[in-house]
Amino acid sequence: MTLTNVPSAVILVSGGMDSAVTLALARTMGFACHALAIDYQQRHRSELKSAERTAHALGAVSFKCVSVDLRSLGGSALTQDDIAVPHHAVYASEPEHPEIPVTYVPARNTIMLAIALGYAEVLGAREIFTGVNAVDFSGYPDCRPAFIAEFEKLANVATKAGIQGGGFAIRAPLIAMSKADIVREGVRLGVDFSGTVSCYQADLNGHACGECDACVLRRNGFESAGVADPTRYYSHPKSNSQ
Amino acid sequence: MTLTNVPSAVILVSGGMDSAVTLALARTMGFACHALAIDYQQRHRSELKSAERTAHALGAVSFKCVSVDLRSLGGSALTQDDIAVPHHAVYASEPEHPEIPVTYVPARNTIMLAIALGYAEVLGAREIFTGVNAVDFSGYPDCRPAFIAEFEKLANVATKAGIQGGGFAIRAPLIAMSKADIVREGVRLGVDFSGTVSCYQADLNGHACGECDACVLRRNGFESAGVADPTRYYSHPKSNSQ
Repeated sequence: MTLTNVPSAVILVSGGMDSAVTLALARTMGFACHALAIDYQQRHRSELKSAERTAHALGAVSFKCVSVDLRSLGGSALTQDDIAVPHHAVYASEPEHPEIPVTYVPARNTIMLAIALGYAEVLGAREIFTGVNAVDFSGYPDCRPAFIAEFEKLANVATKAGIQGGGFAIRAPLIAMSKADIVREGVRLGVDFSGTVSCYQADLNGHACGECDACVLRRNGFESAGVADPTRYYSHPKSNSQ
Repeated sequence: MTLTNVPSAVILVSGGMDSAVTLALARTMGFACHALAIDYQQRHRSELKSAERTAHALGAVSFKCVSVDLRSLGGSALTQDDIAVPHHAVYASEPEHPEIPVTYVPARNTIMLAIALGYAEVLGAREIFTGVNAVDFSGYPDCRPAFIAEFEKLANVATKAGIQGGGFAIRAPLIAMSKADIVREGVRLGVDFSGTVSCYQADLNGHACGECDACVLRRNGFESAGVADPTRYYSHPKSNSQ
């Protein structure tokens, strides 16, 4: 079998469930998928191991991890050890927490998509997939449709490939889906969620805390979809009724 | 003296003459200047040392260097050792070289501005300065006014600070200036160009090749401005008539 004429795509993968489903979707659309993980010195290091394992399991033709030292910038609970990752329940009930929580990493998705854009241009790929989601998105500004649309415009003035023909498309196929929809779509596509890590403070073995925003949104998604939660927790997960 | 009410700005610095003049301009505009260098594993490592030295000499209140491994992506003479940096004369005369040369680094300025955006958001700065220049720009797409305008739009949908008020301005004060204008502006502002490194393949001591695009544009700038060229070369610079 030859890969001639099979279009290539770069898929940003994080090790979490959303990017796993995104990669599975891109594969069903016929793309030769180049998985790209970004090591931004995040607190949850085990997600990078999960990203590589999941990418291979889902049929990516390549996996690459690029480092960018966002820890040296600080400003987020995910990159700064002296800012605690909040419990979901605490975050939701405290009025001094505005709609954007401390787990927001300044400009993270802009930086990740910018690196993906450079990689796509080197590969000759014209499609970039990201698993961002605007429904269960914790209020992050760079997970909204307006952000994706603006980044696509930027990509097509910023690059040699963008201005000389072809042009880039930024795809966020999960952006309007609920977590339950994403679980169902993953099940349909055969994604093994047990190997994915969503927790903001997972341990080195990929065990999840069960209490941060990412854990609670994920657990609620499995429950709403009527799918057993395969997540391995290191503490006692709270019930959804809390 | 207190810095209260002095607005902050992030200045992208490369060690070259353009970003030195940009920093000097931002200082005269009254900003507390936070210099940010990006170590993208470029071929010309000595520019990073020059960036720090120049930032301090020009009165920056801080200097930070953030690493991003663009070498692992490849695709450019500046990050890939098996692609030679072309001589200016060769580049200009070979028809197979289109208007964008092999020294173009895919999405480089997008990635650098994205990191600067994250840093500005952490600092509470609302102004980001870059020394990009559209006149003597070697045809790079991410040095054009259209790119700067699109990035500013993106910055203001991508970030917490952008959507919650204030908003970011991306400043490229040299974008319409010739290299001679930049030399003259630098002289007016007291920039010591002898410590700046523009060469794409400078040696570890900051000595320049005299033959790449960056060297030729720089030397022509000094000549047109009627200013003695303080650059230290490691090979014999060619005359401008070649």
